Amino acid sequence: MPLNDSVPAALTLEPDCLLYLQQPVVLGLSGGRDSVALLRLLVQQGCRVHALHVHHGIRSAEADADAAFCAELCERLDVPFELQKIDVPTLAAEQGVSLETAGRHARRWLLAAAARRCKGCIVALAHHADDQAETVLFRLARGAAGMRGMQPVHQAGHITWIRPLLGCRREEITDWLQQIGQPWRDDSTNTVADVTRNALRLEVIPMLNKALGRDVTPVLNRSARLQGETLEALEAALDVLPVLDPQGRLYLPFVWEQPHALQKAIVRHYLQQQGVADISESMVLAVLAVLPPDAPAARVNLPRDRYACRKERRLIITGE
Amino acid sequence: MPLNDSVPAALTLEPDCLLYLQQPVVLGLSGGRDSVALLRLLVQQGCRVHALHVHHGIRSAEADADAAFCAELCERLDVPFELQKIDVPTLAAEQGVSLETAGRHARRWLLAAAARRCKGCIVALAHHADDQAETVLFRLARGAAGMRGMQPVHQAGHITWIRPLLGCRREEITDWLQQIGQPWRDDSTNTVADVTRNALRLEVIPMLNKALGRDVTPVLNRSARLQGETLEALEAALDVLPVLDPQGRLYLPFVWEQPHALQKAIVRHYLQQQGVADISESMVLAVLAVLPPDAPAARVNLPRDRYACRKERRLIITGE
Repeated sequence: MPLNDSVPAALTLEPDCLLYLQQPVVLGLSGGRDSVALLRLLVQQGCRVHALHVHHGIRSAEADADAAFCAELCERLDVPFELQKIDVPTLAAEQGVSLETAGRHARRWLLAAAARRCKGCIVALAHHADDQAETVLFRLARGAAGMRGMQPVHQAGHITWIRPLLGCRREEITDWLQQIGQPWRDDSTNTVADVTRNALRLEVIPMLNKALGRDVTPVLNRSARLQGETLEALEAALDVLPVLDPQGRLYLPFVWEQPHALQKAIVRHYLQQQGVADISESMVLAVLAVLPPDAPAARVNLPRDRYACRKERRLIITGE
Repeated sequence: MPLNDSVPAALTLEPDCLLYLQQPVVLGLSGGRDSVALLRLLVQQGCRVHALHVHHGIRSAEADADAAFCAELCERLDVPFELQKIDVPTLAAEQGVSLETAGRHARRWLLAAAARRCKGCIVALAHHADDQAETVLFRLARGAAGMRGMQPVHQAGHITWIRPLLGCRREEITDWLQQIGQPWRDDSTNTVADVTRNALRLEVIPMLNKALGRDVTPVLNRSARLQGETLEALEAALDVLPVLDPQGRLYLPFVWEQPHALQKAIVRHYLQQQGVADISESMVLAVLAVLPPDAPAARVNLPRDRYACRKERRLIITGE
């Protein structure tokens, strides 16, 4: 298998991720198509990659072959390779979660730990545009309030998670790997077939394409991106609106003047800032109900023995 | 057919619509299940309904029977009935649109005209929760930036359009009509079978239900409602943020301090306020690019010979 890194990259990486590729990056390398493609692309970009393969302790022979494939590929590419073994069935039993959830948590945890050791604190994930469309539909049909997809760049604690392939289609990735003669291992990390995602990918999205007479994936992803930006813009606007008095209490004369939808957003934002637990729409509405000066009640209970209370044209939240 | 209006309403009408039912309401009565149910419910509520049936000039015998059914039902219920005939094929040919679009436009126009004559200026439409879920998916897959469903109450010009059944499921409506022994005419207003909507209803949504293992309709509708509220809240926040100078020009030192997503929202809102035509995401980004004090250009062209120009830490839009 000749490695030909002079082949020009036909895949466009997410512009927001490019900046991070100048630092050391940890890549979760399963041996599957997407992570193999991302490895080749990162190497091609001159990025200092550290590859981490997680062996799940399930389907041993096949999993061993996956690990060997990854080790060999990294050796050829002169990429540092790390192998971590976990026992997913035991983890799942201990935590009382599904194999899939246990595997995902363990992988995330190991990737973050490796990123901290690599100083850059950056982890690259190989999700692409078709994964994104599935995620969007999945979250939407699960009742997500804000239809957000995965972000190309996401900061969590000290770690920056980047998804450089988020704009690439599955087919483009396959084509490119075939073009450069790079093989991959099939479905090697699917510890358990994810029935829901498979149904979305293989049945729902093709049927949506047919019903709408177009490829809905880029359209869904664009909708999700714009929705995400709307939520971000609203959060940022709530941070600069004059909603608080100098003591940091919610200043009601301003809130009273706003339309209902903005009042709801202000109250939710304030509850979040005050660290109130388990915020729900009904909680937000219950708090809204005590805001008017002529409301029948001026106080509403919140979880963990806290309460919200209207007093001298302010809303005060007690405790913690 | 005995009319028994003492049967309690098993269907819950949209709370936001109830206020409007104290005024005269025009109802588009096709004779189909949904509009027949809404007629019976409005009468039950003691609402002064004026029913308008639009005869489309297609499939004459069947359409005549629909009109006769509606006239007879209204007579029994003692509801004023109005019949309007339109020639949809001719309208469609004249306007160069599909039969369906021509029919919809003509119906909307006739309903609005009838509402103006009835003084209340209120039109009730019979869309229900399953229609809403189809609309949400349809708009989403067509690339709507903000995933909004139909609104229970929508003001347009002098007319208030209300959708009292928006929280009711198709099945509930069918059950209730059967319970009160009220027949309806099947599919009478579908001037043309809407292929896309049928595919969404009959194929995509059932498959989503199966893939997610739940009834996705209420979940999709809730997501859409919350998204709509987010957009409304953002619009309202943009109206009160200190983005304009006393002369109504965009004040850039404030804009510069905001995160990218809020900058985009501010610029889009400002372009809308200035009546700029054909606002697109690329136009917003092009305007954003001239905002920084060190930007290579300070001016960008807009449609209809207008342009946006940075000058003395303000953004000015010329013309109109």
